[in-house]
Amino acid sequence: MFEHTYDTDDAIAALATPWGTSALALIRGSGGGSLELLEKVFSPLSRLREAAGGTFLHGVLSDPVSGEPLDDVVVLVFRSPASYTGEDGFDISCHGSLPGIASILEALRNAGFRDAGPGEFTMRAFLNGKMDLTRAEAVREIVESKSRKAHSLALQRLSGAIAKRIKLLRSKLLDTAGKIELALDYPEDELDETIVLDSGPVNEVIADLKGLLSTFSTGRLFQAGARVAVCGRTNAGKSSLFNLFLKEDRSIVSEVHGTTRDYIESWINIGGIPIRLFDTAGLRDGGDAVEIEGIRRTRELIDAVDLVLYLVDAQAGVAGEDADFLNRPGNKGRTIPVWNKTDLTDGAAPAGYVPVSVVSGEGFHRLEERIAGHFLKTAYTGDEAVIDSQRQKECLESALDSLEHVKAGIENDVSLDAVAADLQGALLAFGELSGEITAAEVLDTIFSKFCVGK
Amino acid sequence: MFEHTYDTDDAIAALATPWGTSALALIRGSGGGSLELLEKVFSPLSRLREAAGGTFLHGVLSDPVSGEPLDDVVVLVFRSPASYTGEDGFDISCHGSLPGIASILEALRNAGFRDAGPGEFTMRAFLNGKMDLTRAEAVREIVESKSRKAHSLALQRLSGAIAKRIKLLRSKLLDTAGKIELALDYPEDELDETIVLDSGPVNEVIADLKGLLSTFSTGRLFQAGARVAVCGRTNAGKSSLFNLFLKEDRSIVSEVHGTTRDYIESWINIGGIPIRLFDTAGLRDGGDAVEIEGIRRTRELIDAVDLVLYLVDAQAGVAGEDADFLNRPGNKGRTIPVWNKTDLTDGAAPAGYVPVSVVSGEGFHRLEERIAGHFLKTAYTGDEAVIDSQRQKECLESALDSLEHVKAGIENDVSLDAVAADLQGALLAFGELSGEITAAEVLDTIFSKFCVGK
Repeated sequence: MFEHTYDTDDAIAALATPWGTSALALIRGSGGGSLELLEKVFSPLSRLREAAGGTFLHGVLSDPVSGEPLDDVVVLVFRSPASYTGEDGFDISCHGSLPGIASILEALRNAGFRDAGPGEFTMRAFLNGKMDLTRAEAVREIVESKSRKAHSLALQRLSGAIAKRIKLLRSKLLDTAGKIELALDYPEDELDETIVLDSGPVNEVIADLKGLLSTFSTGRLFQAGARVAVCGRTNAGKSSLFNLFLKEDRSIVSEVHGTTRDYIESWINIGGIPIRLFDTAGLRDGGDAVEIEGIRRTRELIDAVDLVLYLVDAQAGVAGEDADFLNRPGNKGRTIPVWNKTDLTDGAAPAGYVPVSVVSGEGFHRLEERIAGHFLKTAYTGDEAVIDSQRQKECLESALDSLEHVKAGIENDVSLDAVAADLQGALLAFGELSGEITAAEVLDTIFSKFCVGK
Repeated sequence: MFEHTYDTDDAIAALATPWGTSALALIRGSGGGSLELLEKVFSPLSRLREAAGGTFLHGVLSDPVSGEPLDDVVVLVFRSPASYTGEDGFDISCHGSLPGIASILEALRNAGFRDAGPGEFTMRAFLNGKMDLTRAEAVREIVESKSRKAHSLALQRLSGAIAKRIKLLRSKLLDTAGKIELALDYPEDELDETIVLDSGPVNEVIADLKGLLSTFSTGRLFQAGARVAVCGRTNAGKSSLFNLFLKEDRSIVSEVHGTTRDYIESWINIGGIPIRLFDTAGLRDGGDAVEIEGIRRTRELIDAVDLVLYLVDAQAGVAGEDADFLNRPGNKGRTIPVWNKTDLTDGAAPAGYVPVSVVSGEGFHRLEERIAGHFLKTAYTGDEAVIDSQRQKECLESALDSLEHVKAGIENDVSLDAVAADLQGALLAFGELSGEITAAEVLDTIFSKFCVGK
């Protein structure tokens, strides 16, 4: 069908679960002849040959070269077209042992399987007509979602919410497209009635497209998340606040890891928004060359984040350095000032500050609300499909642009040829969105972002 | 049957694959009524009800409380007794999304499942007679094995190699046991012939037990691995050697992580032996209180490891400090001196040193052979079952001890009552080994070491 980086008809296999010690692991295989190749490693052979699709077998895997037994496994048998990819295939459920997984993958290679590339199973599902491109992208978005909200939005896309919406928009344009085609094919005098183009349906589609495009920032927010840095002077309580966020967030356990000596970071979850939180406790003036480099990197980080939580120690009060930071033009509108250590002082917080005590936890919930509010104030809150993919956004923008031309053309009585070309452009953009019309390199780009095994 | 920490007849569920973002994840459930409870979250309901054991279904999971759809899944249906645990149960293959996995586990809890404890599935398999205790322990050993050799030894145990061996030893004792029983039950004059006890079979079993026990250190070596530290003066090339080991070892990818400021460590694999390798580059004299504490900890580490690779810089030659270390009584016999930087010097290495260049890699393979040789020189190399479990070792020692008494009793014509009691003790120890006779708390201890989901 297309020229892809990947072959699309050989037998592929990959570990589909994370590389780690655990009770079980899943190894997935697919492709023409994959069940026959599996016969080289699975016994009892006869049961595999007889197995109907949709059944699973208990058996032993052995290396086809050495004959050495490798593991007790359960094999799920998929027979085309009733599988994820649409091809013959299998899932092997084996023990979650690192050397065991490695030896099974090697045995599959010895039997003739190729290691699957990222997203290759889903790419095959797409190429075999098991799902359109918006659903295929949703598979990746589901896997990579960092909060329940993001997961639920992606699941909605997997169910085809966007594909259905686009189909509807497209159908609204077909009447106009038909009329134009008729007018272009037949001279006016051969037709019974004069063709009058009405921009109404096009306007409707334009309005709908704008609505869909407006959901993009919301989609991105929930899928890609936002970057938030905890800043402030030494001893303002930055690391304590950072740790408090980690402790409160039970929804996703992510490891805290120091990327550099300069700051540490962790994913947390506030109001369903995945937040990549940075602790800049390493930031301090002076020091040797390494420290100066560290400070430079931390400053770059602060400039790049979406939101800064700026802590002021209520006992120390607002110092010149604090005021400088808060008043800097680049920081306004993306900084929440936090008045910390309210447990140690009596005075009220200055206007605009969120009073908290990172020791007692007092005020912490209000701070979370302020953060969520900051991001959600422009968010789309409807219950229709929300887009998150940059590619989908570009397709929609391209369609919108073409339709604006169509609209202007109709309203200004421009030549029908030009209007027809623009309308064709819009329909093409919809086709690209769903994947009906897509260049091979575009597909390769899309699927290369997937996990291996998907 | 026993009073366990775990209930043994309720419905349990757990994630069986590692907690991480990936293509797929497996969630496992088991217990009486588990398929009925699954009906609360799975649709289409009718297909689940009709599903035969050994088949799998594609469907959607939803939360039983909110009704919210959670994921597209494949469900494997197990019907008692054809399952791992022997009970009704299922495996859910879902998308490997962290929020998705968390929401499915919550939905299962809402439907009435309890979170499974470590090893609880395997414990049920044991209690339901699906496997004896040596096989159950092998399940954990397979999952935790750190090299192919360890994996293959554990797989041999899973196939029942130890259980079969013990059964054979036991049967060899039954004739002796029968004779003693007869003699105790009937006064001598009631029997047709005089009962003569022969210590031959007991001697055979004793010899065999000793053989089996001698495999323990080999089993431990491959399963638990050995600890090796890279030591030497500043600039001897410690960290370069450490990194070279990591680069060469492609069999297990483990992350390098600094446990303290004082040393970093990683699992590597030399000749099938899992090696926990420590880089002590942080070791240096003097400094502040923190550094002194670090040095103390590093020294403790060096005293505790099984083998030290002591690097000497060939350009700098053997200094007094090096000689002190190598001559210290506690270090002899567990130190391999390494003559590094042969690429920069011409002279031969001093006797006993392994010459290497960590820059060019020259001599590295020889060093690996020396390390493997150090550990394997006393290893068991036969092809019979190898034991690795401390518990199994203790059972075998207890049986051996009892049989030595039986032997002495027979040879010295001790009263039959005493011999009978000792023989009973040996048979009891075999029963404990296979799990036929085991106290509940012993089982709890065994299974609590497992992964959750196994």
